[in-house]
Amino acid sequence: MYKNNLILQALKGDITSQIPVWLMRQAGRVLPEYRQTRKKAKNFIEFVKTPQLAAEVTLQPVDILNVDAAIIFSDILVVPEAMGLPYSMAEEKGPIFQNFIRSASDIQNLKIAHTDQYSYVIEAIQLTKKHLNNRVPLIGFSGAPWTLFAYMTEGKGSKTFSTAKKWLYSNPSESHQLLQKITLSIINYLKDQIKAGADVIQIFDSWAGVLNKSLYQQFCIPYLKQICNEIKEVPIILFPKDGFFALQDIQQLNYNAVSLDWTIEPEWVIPLLPNKTLQGNADPCLLYANEKTIEQETIKMLNKFSSVPYIANLGHGLYPDIDKEKVRFFIDIIHNFKR
Amino acid sequence: MYKNNLILQALKGDITSQIPVWLMRQAGRVLPEYRQTRKKAKNFIEFVKTPQLAAEVTLQPVDILNVDAAIIFSDILVVPEAMGLPYSMAEEKGPIFQNFIRSASDIQNLKIAHTDQYSYVIEAIQLTKKHLNNRVPLIGFSGAPWTLFAYMTEGKGSKTFSTAKKWLYSNPSESHQLLQKITLSIINYLKDQIKAGADVIQIFDSWAGVLNKSLYQQFCIPYLKQICNEIKEVPIILFPKDGFFALQDIQQLNYNAVSLDWTIEPEWVIPLLPNKTLQGNADPCLLYANEKTIEQETIKMLNKFSSVPYIANLGHGLYPDIDKEKVRFFIDIIHNFKR
Repeated sequence: MYKNNLILQALKGDITSQIPVWLMRQAGRVLPEYRQTRKKAKNFIEFVKTPQLAAEVTLQPVDILNVDAAIIFSDILVVPEAMGLPYSMAEEKGPIFQNFIRSASDIQNLKIAHTDQYSYVIEAIQLTKKHLNNRVPLIGFSGAPWTLFAYMTEGKGSKTFSTAKKWLYSNPSESHQLLQKITLSIINYLKDQIKAGADVIQIFDSWAGVLNKSLYQQFCIPYLKQICNEIKEVPIILFPKDGFFALQDIQQLNYNAVSLDWTIEPEWVIPLLPNKTLQGNADPCLLYANEKTIEQETIKMLNKFSSVPYIANLGHGLYPDIDKEKVRFFIDIIHNFKR
Repeated sequence: MYKNNLILQALKGDITSQIPVWLMRQAGRVLPEYRQTRKKAKNFIEFVKTPQLAAEVTLQPVDILNVDAAIIFSDILVVPEAMGLPYSMAEEKGPIFQNFIRSASDIQNLKIAHTDQYSYVIEAIQLTKKHLNNRVPLIGFSGAPWTLFAYMTEGKGSKTFSTAKKWLYSNPSESHQLLQKITLSIINYLKDQIKAGADVIQIFDSWAGVLNKSLYQQFCIPYLKQICNEIKEVPIILFPKDGFFALQDIQQLNYNAVSLDWTIEPEWVIPLLPNKTLQGNADPCLLYANEKTIEQETIKMLNKFSSVPYIANLGHGLYPDIDKEKVRFFIDIIHNFKR
């Protein structure tokens, strides 16, 4: 079906002879070409909402970096916006919501997101698929329920998300109501992405790490379970950033793959997640090193994951100031690795 | 020696019949009394540098919260400042260094901190000891070498500390030089705190969590080892926040106790850290909950740590908007717990 099918094979559980690779935030500021396209929109939100521009930057890393999948350029906060909470993105400072969830009645006022509210993402996927012309698969994505809940109750980024966690501790039943509404919105959103052509889905639980095993069991696992049980059409990957404590519970869910951050030791996680494809987990900061160090550390990682179905990636998104040539070098090492 | 000796007993390895407790950031904005005293200084740095005020807020939680130890009110950035990098503290935004380490020559220009540069902390300890009048022990502290390095190279707070980590990956030998200078400064600082009367030392490795096992082994363990091998006069506690991956290596070091964040499961850590006193690890956000939930979760924690030498604490500092009455309630549950 695709000229390059490696990622889909790995997600089926194959130990592919060549290891596939894509990078979180590969469509991003690390590419001068992205920075050029970015100038065509007056702000980040308009950029995300213009399908032609989103498709353009989605395709760039396929051509420039030789990655084995594209991931649609968008933002995890599309879903809260579609539910009724518009936001703005302050350069360097992250997202700010004009209104955010402060009371139970705010939860009642939220919509379940439907196609009309995020049609620009669907159009961007359709456009991207056309231009990709079956070269590589396209990954669609969403934030996880907890991570979206965190922004929707905190109103902005945070190191601790203590306001969001205050909801979990002091209003557990309202928190469940909100998480359920978010989950139904995510499921609609993902189904539409798949209809538009997304071949794989990744769920970003970027703020898993501020919780613990018990909170994750109560407030994340049930909703992550609904999502993976509803999304049967394509393979689905879960990325529980800094959520080492949740991996045993995640193993029980129907995710095809788990994406790992760099704090997770391969030797520790491989026996913990049998039958899952693993993805990750180089520290993005490794790409600040010289070529010799990048090569050594990358080969070490590939050897450690070599015995299981595996997709190489970073343990988090690329940082904007990483040299594009180092990114290519990293990808070439992976492609040249003999399993 | 002290009317209340519980913490020192627990640090010796005793399973005390009453469980001792103190809280990170107990001398802080959670107390209205602290906020009153804080007004007497024109900014945070002046506040930290005024021994009378620092001693005043150090004593407050002993009287008001009934904790089993005082911890000297100060800031981990006293050491970088003493080495030659002054900083300011922007409310809500955290520390900003006017100059920070950008080159190898900047490292050469740094001093090893000596008594003269941090005498205000030493005076604050002497004053506090006098007023404490042997009621409870006094904890002195320092940031860990990596955590201070992180601020000194990043120049400010960060979610990722990617600039600091860039140093480790791209300039490992200069990074070691800087870490060594910081370590020698910390040792001077701690020795002086102990001479002034500190009965216990805690090392805060607040940014352990952005590293991984291999980086921690290379850039943290050797310096943490120097520190614990030099500080033989009093018990010493290490708090490697979010550093679950480092605990096996920390077990090998001569720290009497390890302070744990809330992501660490007692069942998992107890066999990993035999012969260490454990400290922690309630999620500070638990104190946003109602009394019933606070009681249930606290008792659960106490039962889980009940079989080992143990000091109850939070898994991180108190948040400023936590209700002081909830803090007292939490402490009372711990004191009333029958082991």
